[in-house]
Amino acid sequence: MALDPDRLFPIHPGARQLARELYKTVSDLPIISPHGHTDPRWFAENMCFPDPARLFVTPDHYVLRMLHSQGIPLESLGVGRVDGKPAESDGRKIWRLFAKNYHLFRATPSKMWVDHSFEHVFGLDGTLSADTADAFYDHIAGCLEQDEFRPRQLFDRMGIEVLSTTESAIDPLIWHKFMKESDWNGRVITAYRPDSVVDPEFEGFSRNVAILGELTSEDTSTWQGYLSAHRNRRAFFKTYGATSSDHGHPSARTECLRQDEAAALFSKALKGTCSAQEADTFRGHMLTEMARMSLDDGLVLQIHPGSLRNHSRSMMKRFGRDIGFDIPMRTDFVEALRPLLEEVGTDPRLTVIVFMLDETTLSRELAPLAGVYPALKLGPPWWFFDSPDGMMRFRELTTETAGFYNTVGFNDDTRAFCSIPSRHDMARRVDCAYLANLVGSGRLQDKEAFEVAHDLAYGLAKKAYRL
Amino acid sequence: MALDPDRLFPIHPGARQLARELYKTVSDLPIISPHGHTDPRWFAENMCFPDPARLFVTPDHYVLRMLHSQGIPLESLGVGRVDGKPAESDGRKIWRLFAKNYHLFRATPSKMWVDHSFEHVFGLDGTLSADTADAFYDHIAGCLEQDEFRPRQLFDRMGIEVLSTTESAIDPLIWHKFMKESDWNGRVITAYRPDSVVDPEFEGFSRNVAILGELTSEDTSTWQGYLSAHRNRRAFFKTYGATSSDHGHPSARTECLRQDEAAALFSKALKGTCSAQEADTFRGHMLTEMARMSLDDGLVLQIHPGSLRNHSRSMMKRFGRDIGFDIPMRTDFVEALRPLLEEVGTDPRLTVIVFMLDETTLSRELAPLAGVYPALKLGPPWWFFDSPDGMMRFRELTTETAGFYNTVGFNDDTRAFCSIPSRHDMARRVDCAYLANLVGSGRLQDKEAFEVAHDLAYGLAKKAYRL
Amino acid sequence: MALDPDRLFPIHPGARQLARELYKTVSDLPIISPHGHTDPRWFAENMCFPDPARLFVTPDHYVLRMLHSQGIPLESLGVGRVDGKPAESDGRKIWRLFAKNYHLFRATPSKMWVDHSFEHVFGLDGTLSADTADAFYDHIAGCLEQDEFRPRQLFDRMGIEVLSTTESAIDPLIWHKFMKESDWNGRVITAYRPDSVVDPEFEGFSRNVAILGELTSEDTSTWQGYLSAHRNRRAFFKTYGATSSDHGHPSARTECLRQDEAAALFSKALKGTCSAQEADTFRGHMLTEMARMSLDDGLVLQIHPGSLRNHSRSMMKRFGRDIGFDIPMRTDFVEALRPLLEEVGTDPRLTVIVFMLDETTLSRELAPLAGVYPALKLGPPWWFFDSPDGMMRFRELTTETAGFYNTVGFNDDTRAFCSIPSRHDMARRVDCAYLANLVGSGRLQDKEAFEVAHDLAYGLAKKAYRL
Repeated sequence: MALDPDRLFPIHPGARQLARELYKTVSDLPIISPHGHTDPRWFAENMCFPDPARLFVTPDHYVLRMLHSQGIPLESLGVGRVDGKPAESDGRKIWRLFAKNYHLFRATPSKMWVDHSFEHVFGLDGTLSADTADAFYDHIAGCLEQDEFRPRQLFDRMGIEVLSTTESAIDPLIWHKFMKESDWNGRVITAYRPDSVVDPEFEGFSRNVAILGELTSEDTSTWQGYLSAHRNRRAFFKTYGATSSDHGHPSARTECLRQDEAAALFSKALKGTCSAQEADTFRGHMLTEMARMSLDDGLVLQIHPGSLRNHSRSMMKRFGRDIGFDIPMRTDFVEALRPLLEEVGTDPRLTVIVFMLDETTLSRELAPLAGVYPALKLGPPWWFFDSPDGMMRFRELTTETAGFYNTVGFNDDTRAFCSIPSRHDMARRVDCAYLANLVGSGRLQDKEAFEVAHDLAYGLAKKAYRL
Repeated sequence: MALDPDRLFPIHPGARQLARELYKTVSDLPIISPHGHTDPRWFAENMCFPDPARLFVTPDHYVLRMLHSQGIPLESLGVGRVDGKPAESDGRKIWRLFAKNYHLFRATPSKMWVDHSFEHVFGLDGTLSADTADAFYDHIAGCLEQDEFRPRQLFDRMGIEVLSTTESAIDPLIWHKFMKESDWNGRVITAYRPDSVVDPEFEGFSRNVAILGELTSEDTSTWQGYLSAHRNRRAFFKTYGATSSDHGHPSARTECLRQDEAAALFSKALKGTCSAQEADTFRGHMLTEMARMSLDDGLVLQIHPGSLRNHSRSMMKRFGRDIGFDIPMRTDFVEALRPLLEEVGTDPRLTVIVFMLDETTLSRELAPLAGVYPALKLGPPWWFFDSPDGMMRFRELTTETAGFYNTVGFNDDTRAFCSIPSRHDMARRVDCAYLANLVGSGRLQDKEAFEVAHDLAYGLAKKAYRL
Repeated sequence: MALDPDRLFPIHPGARQLARELYKTVSDLPIISPHGHTDPRWFAENMCFPDPARLFVTPDHYVLRMLHSQGIPLESLGVGRVDGKPAESDGRKIWRLFAKNYHLFRATPSKMWVDHSFEHVFGLDGTLSADTADAFYDHIAGCLEQDEFRPRQLFDRMGIEVLSTTESAIDPLIWHKFMKESDWNGRVITAYRPDSVVDPEFEGFSRNVAILGELTSEDTSTWQGYLSAHRNRRAFFKTYGATSSDHGHPSARTECLRQDEAAALFSKALKGTCSAQEADTFRGHMLTEMARMSLDDGLVLQIHPGSLRNHSRSMMKRFGRDIGFDIPMRTDFVEALRPLLEEVGTDPRLTVIVFMLDETTLSRELAPLAGVYPALKLGPPWWFFDSPDGMMRFRELTTETAGFYNTVGFNDDTRAFCSIPSRHDMARRVDCAYLANLVGSGRLQDKEAFEVAHDLAYGLAKKAYRL
């Protein structure tokens, strides 16, 4: 059997037993997925998923990057080339390559997610390898043709209470509209992601801002009209369930400019004459403007900083974005968040959730900041740290200073739909292991641990995201 | 019972048993408290402490920050406003708010300190909560009226062998004088903290330097007179037991200027015309001057760098300093300490104790530096890291390179008098747990562990601080 | 007995048992030592080693630095002074000083290495101390006079399959020539270290480049001639077994200049007119040139960045280099490696092995980079991190993102010949402990662990270094 029922629990029998008991009370709780990147079209159209390779390999940048790191060309994994040259299109061939190299994933979270999906979503036992590649492929392919493996059916079966996708501010939200008008009751909501109309360096910025104007009937050539358009569009997103906005900036920099300064920068940004430094200043200031809007409309503000996207520009030219070449960078939060926090951070009506890709900031910067500012909460371990050791270190590095209640439960943040239950399961197991260790070393009482386990698995996410 | 007698010991039974045995040999050792911020007036006047809220809540910035992080206004916790607007003055109301929110402190060191004080200082059993708030309040308030809960009586009962407070270089030390002239035998000593006369950016710097001149009958308008005044004042502090100086700079920067350069900077500093960069240079150079004086008068030099004080300037305007808004910053030690260490760091007569708020420097910078320079020793985990996981990481990140004998035992560094025994107890437990794990994994011999445990709990602090 | 046979294994009995079983399958594997600093002259001449102090104390900068940190003058440890003033020359006196202070090394890797050498190389039991100093000295001195303790005999007895020394690009390799021409079969190979002819700030750079020209009959006054000379010299090193080059730069900076830019910088470098910034640019560019040559000749490129050498310039003046005053620095890899990786990092024919002295980069930078670029592999924990906790953190911080197969096994990187078996033994034990914990927590299957243990101890180093 690929999955140990006691996986990720402490090794010591006493702590393990308590972890098991804690886990038993949270393992079947509904899944709150307040931040992620699944495609709303799946749930709107409810078409069958394509073949196993296109479900598990080609779209998963965790899988792609590991295979590529050992010299496997991305083309042979089915990744399309920008220049249109052909990539492998035979799902079975891609799958065999994946299976043959599955040992590369030993002790990685990717393997745990995939193994969990095999077992829990597709009812497969055993271990994927060159020998079992075809059997696994055939079984999964067979499932994918059945109705019960369509997106909505899987969603229901997975016990998802609510799932948020993320859409650009200028996305028409047609798939969300389809869902809303359908008879399906699954709660799939959107989140407001305005990078394309907030970042002067975003491709097509001024055109995007013009589109935002058209969509909202505001004059986005003026600073006031631009702000009104955001307010208007946020309200529109709220009609599709949005409770949060999301911001993926290179750094955590915030600014709090005077309105005339901001207006002048906006005007330069529209003309495309911002320097790199001015563009950064403008992005930083817009976070503060978004926080101000949040005070009015209640959207939770999420900041995802610190990724250097497309580290290899030559690979980007060949294959485009999201193929595994985004690399974390050293990130500062203390000075960077200061302008926003000084302006609105002590207002308890506001919730700002900050994520990190630089673990060194957890004990030094983020826990101390979240442990004093009422508006600031710590997002769960993100991306490269969404892993058993990463999650454990997150708790060990934040709890003593920020406690549990300045954190917000778990986010799966994934495009890999099948991995959602396995990611939440992993987080629940690690949290239960952490709590059992605290009880075992006399740092938490037994009954407190059960309460906290429930909060970490369910309550905190629901509360923080106002769901 | 709130406190587990085996708390913080390893979970594995064998290692736990050894940790217990190690702890038994150090748990009752006298407390050496060579660095802290208790108020000497308490011991000079020996008045009763006020009500429970004003003992446990209002003055403890760890407690304030956690409650505030969940939206509780500081006013309602009794924190006075700078503008004189009223704060909550009813101790019982403050206490109830604290008790109702006590779950926020789960798994934090604050909870362990408070629970330990409840049990060991006030003989309370059970857990603080909304239900028990009044009973706890009444019991503690009743105690505080009794003679045996006055400061000197508590000091004696806590088994404190020596306790150092910290006073400004221009403090008249009248409370220390009162103590010295009293018939009480408690050993409370002072430490020389010259920030106000060393930092050109300190409020009232030039006036402070003039006061230093008056106190020492030196002409502090000249560089030589200023240095003499320091020497003179350090000697005065030594008559009140001082064995150390303490320096709280934004960074660990040191400089070693030529005397004419230093004199010129000092002159600009007095005139208030230093740039920010020059002020920083001057502060850095003064650490080297202090080290030179230490070579003559034997005071141990302590450096506490890396805190960005008053992160929210708006909160600072409303409530003043020390309300929980000081945030650690990334800190460099390698280049920063180099000028001082190159000048005097290989002189074994000198002891420089350096503290950190940036854990990433422990294995990379501080352990390698302390593991080679005779003058340099590592201060214990400080502030946000004065916690079970923080202390354990400190040992794990420093011992392999710096060993045990380049560290200096424990500092409680607290304003919270009642927490002193609990803080030392926590440090002793964590060190015993660390040693038991080393023995359990064959990295230290049994009898060595007992010797080291004693050194960490008692001997090293006494030796390093020359007490 | 100084050494616990279960040392470094997990404390929990189940995990310990598995660690033992894993270790049993790798403990006697031949030693692959692909990077180190032993002296080829030892193996060429096969003379007896001098006295115990000159084997264990004077040349070991780990030992020197710890003793010095507690105020012991380097002269009294036999370290020669640059000005020719006498140092202690009585080996027994040095040895007694070492023995008397041996407690300083408690829980350090140095103690484990030395204890292991005592037991496994010299058959000594018991613990070194002031009391046993003379007995240990006499026993070791006695051994050193015997033929079976000569370098070649020790090499064979230690089970070393291959050992790489490191020589300057302009080293004549005479000792390697002697070995090659001898009848000894021990495989001692060289590695190409061109710092002295690649770094414009290296003492005697232009003279060194001229020597490189003479050795290769190339005109190294021209850029093309200089590149040809490198190619030529690399080929010469390959005739003495070299499979790698090694580069010890202050930072990990790489550059990819146009050829005319590089030629112009080279010309300035030869004239000695490079600014510090230009020298750094040139060094960075030369890494890319070396990588290009590696694509042709197959040498593995090793980068050892991040050490600030000779932190105390006054100690450097008195005693020279390599006395323990090299201190790690914060190091960036994300931007620094980008030019090289963008140019050649996706070519699977190339192997670049990068080492770190800044642990914060492991999970944030190095594992993500090595987890996607085919050419990049992570070197093992280096120098201050070549220790049980350092090695364990290395696995915990890299495996989840980079897996096992983007790492390259162990390097002892030592000048201390006797410590080679103990260093490999330590690495094998820690890896087995890590694997046993993974199995115990359901993250790896039993049979996978045995396979991985073998790879980490033997297979990966052999494959990565093409041995």
